[in-house]
Amino acid sequence: MGAKPSEREIIRRIQERLPAGGGDLVKGIGDDCAVLRQAGGRLQVFTTDTLVEGVHFDRSWHPPELLGSKAAAVNLSDIAAMGAEPRFALLSLGVPAAFAPDWLAGFIAGFLDTLGRYEVMLIGGDTVQSGHEVMVSVTVGGDVAEDRVLYRSGAREGDLVWVSGPLGEAAAGLEICRRRLAETEPAWRQLVRAHLDPAPETALGPLLAASGLVHAMMDLSDGLATDLAHLCEASGVAAELVAEQLPLSSALRGAAVRLGATALDWALRGGEDYRLLFTAPAGATLALEELAAARLDRELHCVGRIVAGSGVTLCDGSERRDISYQGYDHFAP
Amino acid sequence: MGAKPSEREIIRRIQERLPAGGGDLVKGIGDDCAVLRQAGGRLQVFTTDTLVEGVHFDRSWHPPELLGSKAAAVNLSDIAAMGAEPRFALLSLGVPAAFAPDWLAGFIAGFLDTLGRYEVMLIGGDTVQSGHEVMVSVTVGGDVAEDRVLYRSGAREGDLVWVSGPLGEAAAGLEICRRRLAETEPAWRQLVRAHLDPAPETALGPLLAASGLVHAMMDLSDGLATDLAHLCEASGVAAELVAEQLPLSSALRGAAVRLGATALDWALRGGEDYRLLFTAPAGATLALEELAAARLDRELHCVGRIVAGSGVTLCDGSERRDISYQGYDHFAP
Repeated sequence: MGAKPSEREIIRRIQERLPAGGGDLVKGIGDDCAVLRQAGGRLQVFTTDTLVEGVHFDRSWHPPELLGSKAAAVNLSDIAAMGAEPRFALLSLGVPAAFAPDWLAGFIAGFLDTLGRYEVMLIGGDTVQSGHEVMVSVTVGGDVAEDRVLYRSGAREGDLVWVSGPLGEAAAGLEICRRRLAETEPAWRQLVRAHLDPAPETALGPLLAASGLVHAMMDLSDGLATDLAHLCEASGVAAELVAEQLPLSSALRGAAVRLGATALDWALRGGEDYRLLFTAPAGATLALEELAAARLDRELHCVGRIVAGSGVTLCDGSERRDISYQGYDHFAP
Repeated sequence: MGAKPSEREIIRRIQERLPAGGGDLVKGIGDDCAVLRQAGGRLQVFTTDTLVEGVHFDRSWHPPELLGSKAAAVNLSDIAAMGAEPRFALLSLGVPAAFAPDWLAGFIAGFLDTLGRYEVMLIGGDTVQSGHEVMVSVTVGGDVAEDRVLYRSGAREGDLVWVSGPLGEAAAGLEICRRRLAETEPAWRQLVRAHLDPAPETALGPLLAASGLVHAMMDLSDGLATDLAHLCEASGVAAELVAEQLPLSSALRGAAVRLGATALDWALRGGEDYRLLFTAPAGATLALEELAAARLDRELHCVGRIVAGSGVTLCDGSERRDISYQGYDHFAP
């Protein structure tokens, strides 16, 4: 055994072997979805996400129905982040040889219910025996008009940085579940739910893309510090976040105090928020806020701005520090 | 823990929750690929296959380059079985936290080389930490003209049953590797290679589909006894196999004698042959054989015929026995 490769190192090795694109490939690895050109002026988008028991979920507290729903939702979130509509899914399921059929039935029910809620067809799959862990790999395809698709790479100097909901809730919920405190405090229900049953931004993503107001978009899966660093790197810009503008719910702040954690850390470093992160020119602020409120009764949160340079800086009072890529790392010890 | 669900039971539970198709979905779960209608008279096909360490491969004898190649090949085989051309792939890779980077580099090189050989683009992927085992899940998309696609369900009474190459080689090769005999016998190289590095029928599948001579097709992944039973069930017919017509190589027969195994069992029950299984009217025999010989220098093997009824019968001398679904079961103990 050699040294442990980081996730980025593995992805870099794959990327350096790939062509830059061309032909029908509009966008390959490096955004929330791959993008292919279809006949008729539409683009087809594809994403794949994998959940492994003991790494991405814990069966001791994650009800199978909600886990099935989440396996669908995390992929739908990637589709929404391109401004696209999800259409179909494929499911690869690995289960240990001795396994409870009831768990599996619950998982499948939750998975199919969530696909059905967003009118996504399950078109194929593969069921195999696994060794020790349940593993779930989902691929979702969708489509979007060529003049509406949004990439990570579109951010421009002067843009404001937005998120579509409170941050850090899923990270707090995970910590609450780990400490077996999920049932103890009614105020924490929204945090636990954010971890167990995230809702993809399937309505907001296409709405923002169709508005023509947004320059760059992605979903928040590895924490704002890492995800925004990816967006900046892809766009060739830097970002400044303002700590006091980050949307932290009172439930989050309360849980942080009670558990001896830091709400700001959950918000910046915690993964799995599955909210949208996007940038838009300052002049679009009012139109964006009105659109989200009028059409979806949603509040958007401006958390910073795009500047020249590289990396992500957090402005916390008079203190400024680089937080680039300090979010969740799938291969961290 | 309850009783162990069989693979078919799990798939049945998923299928009973799915719509029969409709809209753009031409064919859902139940064939080698799902089939979607595209703009412009083409059909898009999708397949997904998962390999789990310790279940589907053993790193102690499977070189990473060949395993990477195989992970691509088993999916390309499904695409070929529809008569389609592969276009793009997505890769989900789970690797334990402490893992040799060289192994991973070899795997990726083999995977990308095989995709490249068949002009298939890797467009996306997901790399995650797994618990104990390496797991690889690949999704491949392709396309085919609507008047050429071949399903499992097209077999008709009176058709002859064909396979595109010798049977049981991969099963024999697996047994040879298990017994650590891979290097001992030059005559066994083709068997070991059939297990480690199967070649998908990417040229033959579309050629047969375009010929208009074939009624039904699928690839051989779970052994002829099981795969032909699936084809018969989908087509509402039965099949009679003639034991002495099964193509068993001299290497296979020799290995069976030396290892105390039965060549016929390997041929009927052994999985992972990745040859094509197809049916065609008796009158097409000469044209099929000439086509395969002239265009690809390949020999085809007629192994039986389609009759009325259900199930698969093996005719071995004067003995007749039902062998339906007696091939490889992913959930067998």
